[in-house]
Amino acid sequence: MNRRHFIGVAGSAGALLQSREASAQPAPPPQQVYPGVWKFTFGAPEKITPTSTRRYAPAEYGLRRLPAVPACPAAVTGGSSRRGTLVSIPLAPNEGVYGLGLQLQSFIQRGGKKRLRVNADPRMDTGDSHAPAPFYVTTRGYGVLVDTARYATFYCGGKKRKKQSGAAEPQPEPSAISTEMLPAAYRRFSFGERTEVLVEVPEAQGVEVYVFAGPTMRQAVQRYNLFSGGGALPPRWGLGMWYRVKNDYSQEEVLNLASEFRERRIPCDVIGLEASWETRAYSSTFVWSGKFPQPAALIGQLTQKHYRLNLWEHAFTHPTSPLHEPLLPYSGDYEVWGGLVPDFLGPEARRIFADFHEKEHIALGVSGYKLDECDNADFTGNWSFPEISSFPSGADGEQMHCLFGQRYQDTLQSVFEKRRVRTYGLVRSSGALAAPYPYVLYSDLYDHKEFIRGLANAGFSGLLWTPELRNAQNTEDLIRRLQSVALSPMALINAWYIKSPPWKQVERNANNAGRFDANWEEVEARCRAVMEMRMRLIPYLHAAFVRYHREGLPPFRAVVMDYPDDPGTWPVDSQYLMGESLMVAPAFAGEPARAVYLPARDWFDFWSGRRYSGKQRIQVSPPLEQIPIFVKAGTILPLAEPTLHTDDPASWRLTAQVYGDKPAPTTLYEDDGGWDPALTEVSLTWDPERHSGSVKRSESGQYEVAEWKLIV
Amino acid sequence: MNRRHFIGVAGSAGALLQSREASAQPAPPPQQVYPGVWKFTFGAPEKITPTSTRRYAPAEYGLRRLPAVPACPAAVTGGSSRRGTLVSIPLAPNEGVYGLGLQLQSFIQRGGKKRLRVNADPRMDTGDSHAPAPFYVTTRGYGVLVDTARYATFYCGGKKRKKQSGAAEPQPEPSAISTEMLPAAYRRFSFGERTEVLVEVPEAQGVEVYVFAGPTMRQAVQRYNLFSGGGALPPRWGLGMWYRVKNDYSQEEVLNLASEFRERRIPCDVIGLEASWETRAYSSTFVWSGKFPQPAALIGQLTQKHYRLNLWEHAFTHPTSPLHEPLLPYSGDYEVWGGLVPDFLGPEARRIFADFHEKEHIALGVSGYKLDECDNADFTGNWSFPEISSFPSGADGEQMHCLFGQRYQDTLQSVFEKRRVRTYGLVRSSGALAAPYPYVLYSDLYDHKEFIRGLANAGFSGLLWTPELRNAQNTEDLIRRLQSVALSPMALINAWYIKSPPWKQVERNANNAGRFDANWEEVEARCRAVMEMRMRLIPYLHAAFVRYHREGLPPFRAVVMDYPDDPGTWPVDSQYLMGESLMVAPAFAGEPARAVYLPARDWFDFWSGRRYSGKQRIQVSPPLEQIPIFVKAGTILPLAEPTLHTDDPASWRLTAQVYGDKPAPTTLYEDDGGWDPALTEVSLTWDPERHSGSVKRSESGQYEVAEWKLIV
Repeated sequence: MNRRHFIGVAGSAGALLQSREASAQPAPPPQQVYPGVWKFTFGAPEKITPTSTRRYAPAEYGLRRLPAVPACPAAVTGGSSRRGTLVSIPLAPNEGVYGLGLQLQSFIQRGGKKRLRVNADPRMDTGDSHAPAPFYVTTRGYGVLVDTARYATFYCGGKKRKKQSGAAEPQPEPSAISTEMLPAAYRRFSFGERTEVLVEVPEAQGVEVYVFAGPTMRQAVQRYNLFSGGGALPPRWGLGMWYRVKNDYSQEEVLNLASEFRERRIPCDVIGLEASWETRAYSSTFVWSGKFPQPAALIGQLTQKHYRLNLWEHAFTHPTSPLHEPLLPYSGDYEVWGGLVPDFLGPEARRIFADFHEKEHIALGVSGYKLDECDNADFTGNWSFPEISSFPSGADGEQMHCLFGQRYQDTLQSVFEKRRVRTYGLVRSSGALAAPYPYVLYSDLYDHKEFIRGLANAGFSGLLWTPELRNAQNTEDLIRRLQSVALSPMALINAWYIKSPPWKQVERNANNAGRFDANWEEVEARCRAVMEMRMRLIPYLHAAFVRYHREGLPPFRAVVMDYPDDPGTWPVDSQYLMGESLMVAPAFAGEPARAVYLPARDWFDFWSGRRYSGKQRIQVSPPLEQIPIFVKAGTILPLAEPTLHTDDPASWRLTAQVYGDKPAPTTLYEDDGGWDPALTEVSLTWDPERHSGSVKRSESGQYEVAEWKLIV
Repeated sequence: MNRRHFIGVAGSAGALLQSREASAQPAPPPQQVYPGVWKFTFGAPEKITPTSTRRYAPAEYGLRRLPAVPACPAAVTGGSSRRGTLVSIPLAPNEGVYGLGLQLQSFIQRGGKKRLRVNADPRMDTGDSHAPAPFYVTTRGYGVLVDTARYATFYCGGKKRKKQSGAAEPQPEPSAISTEMLPAAYRRFSFGERTEVLVEVPEAQGVEVYVFAGPTMRQAVQRYNLFSGGGALPPRWGLGMWYRVKNDYSQEEVLNLASEFRERRIPCDVIGLEASWETRAYSSTFVWSGKFPQPAALIGQLTQKHYRLNLWEHAFTHPTSPLHEPLLPYSGDYEVWGGLVPDFLGPEARRIFADFHEKEHIALGVSGYKLDECDNADFTGNWSFPEISSFPSGADGEQMHCLFGQRYQDTLQSVFEKRRVRTYGLVRSSGALAAPYPYVLYSDLYDHKEFIRGLANAGFSGLLWTPELRNAQNTEDLIRRLQSVALSPMALINAWYIKSPPWKQVERNANNAGRFDANWEEVEARCRAVMEMRMRLIPYLHAAFVRYHREGLPPFRAVVMDYPDDPGTWPVDSQYLMGESLMVAPAFAGEPARAVYLPARDWFDFWSGRRYSGKQRIQVSPPLEQIPIFVKAGTILPLAEPTLHTDDPASWRLTAQVYGDKPAPTTLYEDDGGWDPALTEVSLTWDPERHSGSVKRSESGQYEVAEWKLIV
């Protein structure tokens, strides 16, 4: 018998209580820990969990501004056995489940089983992920965080306990959404039945479970993100174009490319270095190599040209690194690539690692990092530290894998925080409570559609994701991928294995041999136009990030999050919302047409201005230069003058496009770029009767509207 | 800190002892439990394991006939923590590791990490498998069984513990095989270093580890198989051709096809029914449906035509099955497809299940079963019972998944044993100690090369595997796949979704619509020739199975198993040995040529008779009608007259082909078909001086050699 005892039950009796072995006893009621946030405690939770190791406090101010919800919306029950701890959360008929972190292979999670194992390059839909998060949200408007740093298994409905002979099937309660309204593909998941989410946390003899009320689905996500500390607010330059150079570039090559971009009018705010800047990369030394003899001078010259510099690295510390000796006592008991694994859960490793990065990079002006390899790649290379590792902080390898990416971000964040400088960067692993970290996830996988699904999925769990552009099959693929990148949290071209920009030549070998397409300038012009679209959207995007920061509302999110009552949105994982008013439906190479689902109320085609009524599926055949974008009726959409970088004052000059008759005012924020920016509000209002727009702005304001355009 | 205490250490100190947390204490020395088999005991092993639930006793007679080995060849250390139990087994420099059950995605296991999770259709190389086995064998000639029914994680070398500052790297011991001798692809796995296999058994507070001495690699596998009870010996008819009909066939359609095969001279010994024979299939009732109104008459008519009947089923028991009510108290607490999961670890469920199958099927003459769906498919459909299940026997769902396939085989085996009738069948899941079970594994995956890798891999772990033919891209693919099938443990055409045989039409829809290829008779003739090749090889193959049964030597095995001292064989996973004298190198559709590695000593091309010297890689370009087969010099190869079935007395009539100057005698066995067959030996001998062959046979003997052919 496995379930030795039952350590806690709350809410209505769960299916677990039927277990022969369980000796059920009433648990303490859930504790309301923040407005609309309840905590259930089962048994003796582990010491090392996402909440116990968090560094950002919940954003109480934001939490208090969400609607009050009187009662905990989910009744969680639980118990422990020698296998670990098992909790159960009821699922109503026709309740959709989403989230569990970055999931590239699946979207709706109801009916599936996921073991949230930190693992690079997941090619099967098992729950393996760069950034799994033990958090889900449902269409009934609440979220659940199982506070564990273990590879928990989520059975998201569909497991049925044995009926005793003659026992009647429980009748499902009536639901506003009937099974017939669901997409056909979902009906097989027994959507219409009452079931439960079962979560098994291995090893642990207890766990805390947090429930986040909505009342709407997106408010539940907001509450989770605010509980996490509120969303990250990237600096304006972080929202510009990014370009990572080939991994063997030298200082001189970097400067040449930087000049070329300006000469050829390629927008770019951030240049990223890959491996060659370090004396040793696998494992890492964090020391500037001979290819970069004068890093301070390099940064100075880049700054003059209005570029920021970003450094690739990973945390595994090579024996020749000056960090190796001091980190030796504060690292795990297994090596990775002959290097140490810093124990980022302990203060010593954090301090040693942070101090060195501050002195050698950040003090020189390095703007941020790309933190690679911090996921677990044991099944795709077997190079990471094993789950059986142990660390001075008391974590084992499994716990460390669940927390490593985030504590790594946090270690570097401590430097930026100390220096009161904002950063924006990349990371390959993250987890629960990640919203406050200004880091964007990426993967070595490369399926364009999966990358878009990643964009939709990441927003459920406080994660940011970039469908970075690395290479392309052909010009069409290049443009289509670049369009998606331009409408993502980080507009990144990652040219780490091609010497020249991809618009000169998409084929890797030819590119590196300097053989360019005959028509490359034409391709460059098309790419430039896409990048200019990104630059035009920065004010709008920045405002969406301010809402992420203050209200927890993800700037990029699935359509269902805003329209959970419309089952037509439930399967939509190849479209996503960007901010409050835009819906993006990327086009894919080789597919001249695609379907787009428009939820309720009217939408305008961004390119043609054509108006569509909502609640319908349409077919679009976007020409190559257009990525399908739909603007919600009632929007004032600010578009900046396209510039080569965000330092250009022209980047504050706007055209305001008015969609529909009675648009709501749009609020933008003037970001002074500081650590705790003033974010002066600028309000754009359209008066339909006087047929004119007005700008309410502060005296010091930078934004100006050069033109108003009415789209009807 | 995780490792709370150290519960046992044996042999030389393992790396674990360096753990800060470990309080090491000397463990009792390993216990020699059988000749050449040692057992290490750590802590308090779980009650439910492969050895504790076994039903076949070790084959002591066979074990005693293997060479004596004075000392345990591996020093196992271990300890427990809250994570479970961890054991360590040293790996020498340049020691190759193989096994871990049916692994379709990888061959050599050194340098990899596998979590042995029972899971259908594994498409990533993570250890997920239909039939994982916690057993491996190394090129240094010993095997290791970790006796657990848990999803153990095997780190097969390469994980490095942190070196303390200034500590010298341990010098690797000298090895007969140097790193330079290894294939280039293997060098990246740090093959030249001394390392360890680390095995983590979750949940368990102890484990027993068995070490099997060789001294050679194949003797280590033999010892493991003999410890398992010795290999299965299929009845002769089981080695003939198998054909499974479309899943909706009726009794009449079966009989029509059976007649057609005889008329068209298609060899076939076994016809298999798929779902339509049951009143309900998902879940199963085990009750004959209206499509099969007279099962006894059907079997009678098939028997007259010398066919055996095999039934598809799975164990999950539908509410309308007569078994449902009696099984209710003896089943797990979760349903699958609305059906019960019988607790095959308890005597009651076994008895109820077995009795019904005996009475309703086996007593009627059903020859055996295809036991489907008994693996876990939670990540490819989420329909199986969860790991958190519990069973009356005390097993949880994880343990049950590890044991379910085998205990299911065993439940039905108990009927055949009771009736003293041999069977041969199919099963989709198996595990440790499986050798005695006359069941062959299969998968819904369908990559031809992976299927061949499966053939090579299964032999390391006491498993049989068929690369069954279902459909084909084109005629070439059809022939190539059929050739591989014909040289496998079960020559199975599984036409469960096509109405007519694939040689009439490979395209599914056209086949089901009755639109046949214009040249289908030509294709049929080619397929017939391949099937006749199978029929010719039955005496040879049967003798190989007798050795499996008596000596534990797998009839199908990887080349490295016989040639571990030749690193050229180490990566060879697209060739395999069949019996003592044949090496098969299947050809794949679309690849007109392939490389073949020939190990030491001379080999003959089976088709041309051309002689090759060994220790070389050759290129072959087999015409479509030939699958590359190489005959070891010194072989007398018996080939039967091809017949339509094994009941035909002509199937005992042989041509003996003599390869090389001084061939060793070949022994065949006359199988009387009984439960405990007499297996009268027949010896074929070639006298090179007199240039003539002779047969030493019993009076009652059936085998006769009609012709001797000398191939030089």
